[in-house]
Amino acid sequence: MKPDASRVIADLRELRALTSDERGAQRVAWGPVWRKARAWFQDKLARDVGVATTRDGAGNLWASVPGKDKRGLIVGSHLDSVPGGGWLDGCLGVVAGIEVLRRMKARGTPPVTVHLVDWADEEGARFGRSLAGSAAAAGTLDAKKELAHLKDRDGVRLPDAMKDNGVPLEGMADAAGWLLSLDARGYLELHIEQGPVLEAMKKPSAVVLGTMGVERHNLRFLGQTAHSGAAPMHLRKDAFLAAAEFALACRDLAAQHSGRTPRTRAVATCGVVKVEPNFVTAVPGSTEISIDLRALDARVLAAMLSGARRASRAAAKRHRVSVEWSPLLHITPRPFDAALMRLIGEAIKQVTGAAAPQIPSGPLHDASEMAGVLPTAMLFAQSSPGISHTRLEDTPLPALDRSIRAFLLAVDRVIDRW
Amino acid sequence: MKPDASRVIADLRELRALTSDERGAQRVAWGPVWRKARAWFQDKLARDVGVATTRDGAGNLWASVPGKDKRGLIVGSHLDSVPGGGWLDGCLGVVAGIEVLRRMKARGTPPVTVHLVDWADEEGARFGRSLAGSAAAAGTLDAKKELAHLKDRDGVRLPDAMKDNGVPLEGMADAAGWLLSLDARGYLELHIEQGPVLEAMKKPSAVVLGTMGVERHNLRFLGQTAHSGAAPMHLRKDAFLAAAEFALACRDLAAQHSGRTPRTRAVATCGVVKVEPNFVTAVPGSTEISIDLRALDARVLAAMLSGARRASRAAAKRHRVSVEWSPLLHITPRPFDAALMRLIGEAIKQVTGAAAPQIPSGPLHDASEMAGVLPTAMLFAQSSPGISHTRLEDTPLPALDRSIRAFLLAVDRVIDRW
Repeated sequence: MKPDASRVIADLRELRALTSDERGAQRVAWGPVWRKARAWFQDKLARDVGVATTRDGAGNLWASVPGKDKRGLIVGSHLDSVPGGGWLDGCLGVVAGIEVLRRMKARGTPPVTVHLVDWADEEGARFGRSLAGSAAAAGTLDAKKELAHLKDRDGVRLPDAMKDNGVPLEGMADAAGWLLSLDARGYLELHIEQGPVLEAMKKPSAVVLGTMGVERHNLRFLGQTAHSGAAPMHLRKDAFLAAAEFALACRDLAAQHSGRTPRTRAVATCGVVKVEPNFVTAVPGSTEISIDLRALDARVLAAMLSGARRASRAAAKRHRVSVEWSPLLHITPRPFDAALMRLIGEAIKQVTGAAAPQIPSGPLHDASEMAGVLPTAMLFAQSSPGISHTRLEDTPLPALDRSIRAFLLAVDRVIDRW
Repeated sequence: MKPDASRVIADLRELRALTSDERGAQRVAWGPVWRKARAWFQDKLARDVGVATTRDGAGNLWASVPGKDKRGLIVGSHLDSVPGGGWLDGCLGVVAGIEVLRRMKARGTPPVTVHLVDWADEEGARFGRSLAGSAAAAGTLDAKKELAHLKDRDGVRLPDAMKDNGVPLEGMADAAGWLLSLDARGYLELHIEQGPVLEAMKKPSAVVLGTMGVERHNLRFLGQTAHSGAAPMHLRKDAFLAAAEFALACRDLAAQHSGRTPRTRAVATCGVVKVEPNFVTAVPGSTEISIDLRALDARVLAAMLSGARRASRAAAKRHRVSVEWSPLLHITPRPFDAALMRLIGEAIKQVTGAAAPQIPSGPLHDASEMAGVLPTAMLFAQSSPGISHTRLEDTPLPALDRSIRAFLLAVDRVIDRW
C-alpha cells in the first residue's frame, strides 16, 4: 500500500483549527485545550480507524491494532504543546500515528501488534518537568519526589491539575507495568526538527542519531556592587564581566569540541542572565548565569563540563569575584538503535531518492526515555524557519509530505522485517 | 577661631536618629521624613545659630549671615537621601554648613556674606531626575519639559508631590533669579567620597578636581531566539554573546584611556543587562545593555564613546546580530576652580600635615551644576567601605573629624582671601 500523507496533513490542519489561536497552538498539558485535542484524537481513532484508546497510570493514551504476533512496535509522540507553540511540534508524530493504524487496519492483521501512544505532558510547559508521561512509562520518574511539589504560576499544584484530569499522582508508576505488558520490541517517533540544520542542508528529512546528553547548571558570580562613577576600574569586583567572559569561553569550548559533521556537533548556551542590582549607575555585584551544554558523545560532554568549570574559575579570578555552581539537570546521551536507524534511512532514500542525512537531536524527546528501555529511532522533518516553540515554527509542505511518507514506509519496513 | 568638628558630628548623629531606620537614611525628597529633616535643620538654624531660612522657587532652603561686603560665598549640599542611604551622603555638607554659619556669627560680621543652601532633590531617588534643585538655580533645568511628566512607582506625579510641599512646578525657574540676587562669587561643598579611592590611598580627605563628564547610552543587540539544543553554534545569532563581548571591550577601553593618576581615571560600566527570553534552553534573541562612560577630560570621554561604538559594531558583526544605540544622558565634565581648589588643598595640609590628594568625582554633585555658573570646589571625606547608597556607607571618625575641620578652615581661607 502506497504511503500517502494527504490525510495526515488534513488531520493536522483540523487539529490546528480546533486547538490554536492567533498566538499559536495552545494545547498545554492538563488544560482544557489539551483535553479538547485528546477528545478529537480519541474520536478520530474510534470513528475513522475503529480502535479504542486506553489510558495508562501516567495519563498516556494508547491505541493498538493487534497483529499475528503479540510482540509490539510502538509509534507515538505528544499532542501537548507549549503556550503559543507550533502546529507540528509533537502532534505531527501522533497524527501520523493515526495513519499508521489506518494502514495496519487496511492490511487486515499486521505481522506484529502496532501501538500508538500520545505521551502526556512532554513539554512540561506549565509545571516545569518535561517528558513526564514517557519517563513514567520508562520507569525513570519518581513522581512523589519530582512532581508532588510542583506548582504553576497561579499556584495550582500539579497533583491537583492531574487529578482534575482523572490521573492521580499515586498511579503514575503503573505506567511502567503497562508498557512492559505490551511486549514491545521497538519505538519509532516522527517529529519536527525544531532547528535549522536540515534547512541549511536543504534536506526534507533525516535519521536521528540520538538525543544529546545535557549538562545544565546555574552559576552565581559574586562580586561587590559599586557606583559606576566612584569605583576605579582596578578596584572593582564586577560580577557581570566575569559572567560575560565565562559565556564567551563556553562558546569557544563548544566550537573546539564540535567536529565537522552534524554527528559530532556540541553546543553551549547561556540562556538566563540576571544582573544585580541592574541599575545604569551600578557596577553589578552579583550575576546569575545558566549554562546548558549538549553533545551526543558522553566523553565530549564531560570534557566540555570540566572546561566550563575551569573557565568559570579563571573568569572569577580575573575579575576578583567568587563563583558557585548549582546543578540543574544531567541527562546522559541517548544514542538510537542502529538497526531501526538503518531502516528509517532506507525509507527516506526510497522517498527522496537521496541518501538520508543523519543528525543528532539537541532537544530531548519522548524517544529519549524510550531509548533507555527499547530499541528506538526517530525521523526528523525539516523546520523552516529553524526555530521552535513559536507559532512561526513550520515545515514546508513538500518536506512535510516526504517526511510523513518516509515515516509510514519505515514502519512498514520494520514490521515486515521482524 | 580653631575649627572644631564635634558639634557637627553630634548634629549628624541627632539627624540620623531622627530620620533613619534599620535599613538606613530615609530622607527621600518630597516625602515626610525629608520634611522632618528640613524642619530639624530650620529649627537648628533658628535656635542655635539665630538665622532664618528662605525657600527659593525650586524648594531649595537658604540661610545667610550678612557680611561687610554683599558679595557672597555659598556653602551647601543636600539633606535628601536615597531610600536606605548612608548617614553622611549629602547631609554632611549641610550640617557642616550649620557650623560654618555658627562660626560666622561668632566672628560678628564676616568680611563677605556667607550663604548656606540645602538643595532640593539632589538624588532624584523617587522620580528619577537628580540635581533638580541645583539645576533649577543654575538655570539648566527646563522643569516643564524634564519634570512635568515624571511619576513615582505608585503613579504619583512629581508636580503633585512638589505641590504638596508648597513648591509649584511653575515657580522653579525663579530659583535662578534668586541665586543671581545673592551676588555669589563662589560655591564650596563638603561631601563623602562614595568610592574606594581615598581608602585605597589611606587619605582622610581630598581636593576634588571636578565631576566627570558622563556618556550614558542604552544598547539593544537583536539576534534570533533559538533552542539551546537544536541550533548549532555556527547558525546562531546570539544577542547576549555580542553584549558580553561589548562589555569586555568597554572595560578594556576604560583601562586604555586611564592614565596612572586619579586625575586621568576613566571608567566604563555596563550596569543594566536584560536578556530575552531569559530561559535556560533559549539562545538569547535580544539583549539590552547599558553603558555609562565617565572621564574628567572631555576629549578622553569622546574617544571612549567612539571606541565603544566601534566595539559594539564589531561584536554585532561577529555574532551576526544588529545593534542600536539610544542616548540616555550626556553631561559635560565640570572641572573645578583652580584658586578655590588651592585654598582647600592648603586647609587639608594644615589639618593633616600632608599634601592633599586631588581626585576627580565620578558621581555628580550639586557642585557640578554650580560649577557652570560660579567658581566652585569640593572637599571629599574618605569612604570606608568605599560603597554608596547603602546604610553601610561610612567615614571613619578620625577621617570625618579631619575632613570637617579642613572644610571649616577652607571657608575661612576663602573669605579672608577675598
